[in-house]
Amino acid sequence: MTTTAPSDAALDRYLDDNREARLASYEAFLRIPSVSTLPAHAPDCRRAAEFVADELRWMGVEHVEVAETGGHPLAYGDWLHAEGAPTVVVYGHYDVQPVDPLDLWESPPFEPAVKGGRMLARGAADDKGQVHMHLRAAEALLATGGSLPVNVKFVFEGEEETSSEHLDRWLEQNRDRLSADVAVISDTSFFEGNVPSITLGLRGLMYAQIDVTGSPVDLHSGTYGGSVENPVNALCHIVAALKGPDGRILIPGFYDDVVPLSDADRAAFAALPFDEEAYRAGIGVESLVGEVGFTTLERRGARPTLDVNGIWGGFQGEGAKTIIPAHAHAKVSCRLVTDQDPDRIFELFRDFVLEVAPPGVTVDVVSLGGGRPSLTPRPHPATTGAAGAMAAACGRAPVYMREGGSIPVCASFERILGLPVVLAGFTNPDDNAHAPNESMVLDNYERGIRAIARMWQEMAALDLSDGGRGSRSAGPGRTGDEPRQGAGTTA
Amino acid sequence: MTTTAPSDAALDRYLDDNREARLASYEAFLRIPSVSTLPAHAPDCRRAAEFVADELRWMGVEHVEVAETGGHPLAYGDWLHAEGAPTVVVYGHYDVQPVDPLDLWESPPFEPAVKGGRMLARGAADDKGQVHMHLRAAEALLATGGSLPVNVKFVFEGEEETSSEHLDRWLEQNRDRLSADVAVISDTSFFEGNVPSITLGLRGLMYAQIDVTGSPVDLHSGTYGGSVENPVNALCHIVAALKGPDGRILIPGFYDDVVPLSDADRAAFAALPFDEEAYRAGIGVESLVGEVGFTTLERRGARPTLDVNGIWGGFQGEGAKTIIPAHAHAKVSCRLVTDQDPDRIFELFRDFVLEVAPPGVTVDVVSLGGGRPSLTPRPHPATTGAAGAMAAACGRAPVYMREGGSIPVCASFERILGLPVVLAGFTNPDDNAHAPNESMVLDNYERGIRAIARMWQEMAALDLSDGGRGSRSAGPGRTGDEPRQGAGTTA
Repeated sequence: MTTTAPSDAALDRYLDDNREARLASYEAFLRIPSVSTLPAHAPDCRRAAEFVADELRWMGVEHVEVAETGGHPLAYGDWLHAEGAPTVVVYGHYDVQPVDPLDLWESPPFEPAVKGGRMLARGAADDKGQVHMHLRAAEALLATGGSLPVNVKFVFEGEEETSSEHLDRWLEQNRDRLSADVAVISDTSFFEGNVPSITLGLRGLMYAQIDVTGSPVDLHSGTYGGSVENPVNALCHIVAALKGPDGRILIPGFYDDVVPLSDADRAAFAALPFDEEAYRAGIGVESLVGEVGFTTLERRGARPTLDVNGIWGGFQGEGAKTIIPAHAHAKVSCRLVTDQDPDRIFELFRDFVLEVAPPGVTVDVVSLGGGRPSLTPRPHPATTGAAGAMAAACGRAPVYMREGGSIPVCASFERILGLPVVLAGFTNPDDNAHAPNESMVLDNYERGIRAIARMWQEMAALDLSDGGRGSRSAGPGRTGDEPRQGAGTTA
Repeated sequence: MTTTAPSDAALDRYLDDNREARLASYEAFLRIPSVSTLPAHAPDCRRAAEFVADELRWMGVEHVEVAETGGHPLAYGDWLHAEGAPTVVVYGHYDVQPVDPLDLWESPPFEPAVKGGRMLARGAADDKGQVHMHLRAAEALLATGGSLPVNVKFVFEGEEETSSEHLDRWLEQNRDRLSADVAVISDTSFFEGNVPSITLGLRGLMYAQIDVTGSPVDLHSGTYGGSVENPVNALCHIVAALKGPDGRILIPGFYDDVVPLSDADRAAFAALPFDEEAYRAGIGVESLVGEVGFTTLERRGARPTLDVNGIWGGFQGEGAKTIIPAHAHAKVSCRLVTDQDPDRIFELFRDFVLEVAPPGVTVDVVSLGGGRPSLTPRPHPATTGAAGAMAAACGRAPVYMREGGSIPVCASFERILGLPVVLAGFTNPDDNAHAPNESMVLDNYERGIRAIARMWQEMAALDLSDGGRGSRSAGPGRTGDEPRQGAGTTA
């Protein structure tokens, strides 16, 4: 195989010439309704994995397979002919969030449409768009130079939106095959205002469901009202007891493992180019509220949360139905920060819910998954390399930020494979990920492809074989004297 | 028209001979899905009104019409040839509650089925069954004797399950036409253990919906979590604030107009043949709970309540979806007791909800209707007459009770038409009214028809033209020295 490094000009020309075919492939990928959380879509998840595998094979990536995990399969492939250069594990996910409420979509979520410079579809940003950018960067490099500047191992999974339930075991089983110098995860976004950024921190997740049961059937609220506990009232009482009016979570022990923000952390947050009023207006809420004593950026990037993701029970139709519902349910999740452990938090949550549950109803609490928080120190050379590539592709140096979302696999790559993680993501922050009308700004998509290609070129020159590893995840092994970079100014 | 009083034996024989045709007609009535709260069923409501009108015409009732009300129509008809005898307004309703959750029904709710001596269908008890009993009692009397023992004006409406929104105006417009001596309402049930009973008290109703809105779209709970108020958490906070752990409703002023229970009231409740453990087991709850300081019978019969009838917001599917829902909703109703006024209670409720609503979300409170509570003193001669008829038909004297449910029209008959109301209902207390698998014990249905016929015969002998009126409803005009009979022992 000829391995000639392509010039930037050749790469750009190739990408310019193939824009139409690229978008057609992007749209074909988006048309697959790979909703991982809904069992009915399992065949679609497999189709999406096969789509990715076919793309990898077509462009010349080797050892391509649709690998079984016990859940939705993942697509794996590698290209390992960059002798002497570092090895990069590239991670993304082809699965997407559910699409309801469907009536709020401007166009059907799995019929991609280009509108106002954006690709509108479920997964356009999170994360099919970014998976597709990696595919296209590799394609362009292989097509123009016959090689990649680094060794790359692609891992595109299908369970990120369901807490990557089966990935850890697969990583453990494939530890040798996945040996590398760094992991690059593209599942984050630019900073507010669509400012290029490198993400240093991710929150973890604890997701649970509370089920409250009273009578086996709905009861007439007149005949029985007053003499029995109402499961919905009971559920509201429980949920209300979880958080105080000051935004503090009231579960005993909840904050025990939260690493406090240092003065430097807070200064870094304060230095970010953040327009709070534009942020509020963009969300469309009357006012921003949160935990007393913290700024908006701190609240969403470095503090844990407790949110009800869904609640239901009893009559939801038009008009009036006078019943005491038989049962009521809530899906509740907490975003976690270092060093909170999702399993421990679930136990505390469950115990507290059962403790505050009123008599007269039966309460069950079940876990629906979770993931560890992660915080990467800035000085890692791969991070710096990625920042340089992004600066070149986007025309401005990226900021360093902490992202409020969770990518459980980030901690897994650190913990299981011992890899430092670079979180280089390219979607616009108003991408409506997880919401109706998800979209990707196509300019971000195009610049991202170019940034990824340059990032690999930058990394080719780095010595990542050893002490480059400066990442850490939550939990045992963290040492107190590591640099802790909460959020930074431009790199 | 020949008007010969039929013997009890002739009446019984007629009813025995016509049982099959009677059940066929009952089932045909139940097959009409007259769900008044759902606009899609408006034509079905009209069909049900026409069904009743056709029946009245067929048996010889006069001036029959399907009367327009501005909402669902009502069926009216009268028979006024019992010279010198009292005039009775008979009230029932042909509309029914919604049927969801449909999957909990043993058989389709609008395909009536006889099982274990019960008629199983939506409306079998509440209230088509009891409307049908009045039709059949009149039919039997007219067929066997060519006359009714009293003058009867039938008013069968179609909006009882939606707070009888248009009935008051129709009653006002037809005040002269509806002049009478007493109203008989058959929309209540026997006491626990299927003990025949006369209901003296009904609770009123205040029904409202709370709508909480945050962002116009669902938000990613990671990206935004911590920086915005969550509409579901806010709604739970509001609902939890409405009632304390002691079962007391915390809305300021809520209890201001509640007439306290006298020692005699409490003694009457205590004297009822009530098996609390059988009641609890029948409902299928772990324990009975309610307002501190009151017994179970007092809580459901003579104390106001606050229940969530339905709640929804965000993701209700299988698995995990990590969103901050755009909006959340709850339907909340209060059962009211004398002298609470539903309009006043709605205002207090709305003001308190808005007061306790947290910042960062928009909260709306809308009324979905209501009705006044009602309490009838026992000594009215029509009540005593009804009790005697019931004793004769059922083989045991009825108990006097207070029913926790609401029949808004009860207060309307008292207030607008100045009529004393006799609440003579015949359904089994485990009829699952408003719930899946509603049913009517056919023995109650048969005995009820006979009791109704006898009740009219008993009333024929009474002088109800004047001071017989001893009823009162909540609100102005009540005098403190009227007898207040909360619940009694056997008559």
